[in-house]
Amino acid sequence: MSPNLILYSYYRSSASHRVRIALHLKHLTYEYRAVHLLKNGGEQYSAEYKRLNPQSQVPCLIHNNQPIAQSMAIIEYLDQIAPEPRLLPSSAYERALIIQICEIVNSGIQPLQNTAVMNELEKTYGLTPEQKTAWIQHWNQRGLSSLEEILKKTAGDFCLGDQVTAADCFLIPQLFSARRFSVDLAPYPTILRVEEHTKSIEGFQLAEPAKQPDYQAL
Amino acid sequence: MSPNLILYSYYRSSASHRVRIALHLKHLTYEYRAVHLLKNGGEQYSAEYKRLNPQSQVPCLIHNNQPIAQSMAIIEYLDQIAPEPRLLPSSAYERALIIQICEIVNSGIQPLQNTAVMNELEKTYGLTPEQKTAWIQHWNQRGLSSLEEILKKTAGDFCLGDQVTAADCFLIPQLFSARRFSVDLAPYPTILRVEEHTKSIEGFQLAEPAKQPDYQAL
Repeated sequence: MSPNLILYSYYRSSASHRVRIALHLKHLTYEYRAVHLLKNGGEQYSAEYKRLNPQSQVPCLIHNNQPIAQSMAIIEYLDQIAPEPRLLPSSAYERALIIQICEIVNSGIQPLQNTAVMNELEKTYGLTPEQKTAWIQHWNQRGLSSLEEILKKTAGDFCLGDQVTAADCFLIPQLFSARRFSVDLAPYPTILRVEEHTKSIEGFQLAEPAKQPDYQAL
Repeated sequence: MSPNLILYSYYRSSASHRVRIALHLKHLTYEYRAVHLLKNGGEQYSAEYKRLNPQSQVPCLIHNNQPIAQSMAIIEYLDQIAPEPRLLPSSAYERALIIQICEIVNSGIQPLQNTAVMNELEKTYGLTPEQKTAWIQHWNQRGLSSLEEILKKTAGDFCLGDQVTAADCFLIPQLFSARRFSVDLAPYPTILRVEEHTKSIEGFQLAEPAKQPDYQAL
């Protein structure tokens, strides 16, 4: 499978991080191609990259020369081409709960803190660095509070019961982002309990930002 | 099926509109319960509603007393419990393309213009009504441009070939929002062509904001 899978990724992109977790959990080897979101105004805006993903975002997975963007689409795809371990169960209601959890991160938090949005808030609306951090903290707190309420009902060792699912692939990268912007995670004990259980799993370890070839210490 | 399905919706919510299209395409009858997003500071923040959806957003579908929030989760769920017509095909790559298109709307455009975000931009950062409209137009233009590029390759009569899919359920409500904020749609001829083909389909007609029991003419 190795030469067939290429992942365009940025070490610190939480959406790329989600897909890296899924790839490693499924023991799929892939070629890592770094896209630096800040250098030269953002490599994601190059004509070459836009041919793969007109949305100019990472991640983008190439499988058999076919590009797929958007982490939710990629993870559902991987679950079909490499079903072990299953990240989206076949039970309709459990699957819906997992997608709901994924989307609280995917559409509820991350879009409000991505590079393009933060650039726009600074350049067009004059937000200071402190205001930008406050903005990010606000949406993280709001999203993580909702998640905590849901996980209180659904979580065992992981987001849904005691099996790793796509929901965990989405939650963990968001916590890396939250800490980067000094979000206090103490109000979310269920989330922290789930995170603790993921720490000993190799798939989560290998996907961490600091383990990627384009990692840069700050 | 009728008494088993309840949809919490707001006529002008594009995420609710997506689910209404899916329900009508599948000829599922449901009880409509209006949640007014602005009245009394927002009915979605009531304790009663938060028990169903801690994220305080519409839509929320109740099936057999089990709540599901997030339009992407709901539409995947409906596709499993009522597979005709299929909105997400079983082919892995086509399914991924459809989810990618859905997510450009779901995570790429809509989160940046939802009620909570617009309130925050006004109250905390002092954006004027004109600045708020410019913000919404910016993210609509950016997202719709990406979609146009993708649909040029994938669309026939609809977003993916000549069959209605979940991608169309996500695209059409976004165009209602875009027009409400005077986004010029002329640069997106493929999107407009797809929209034209949906207009004669009853499922799309019945789901329109103006057909909902809580519709209010402005």
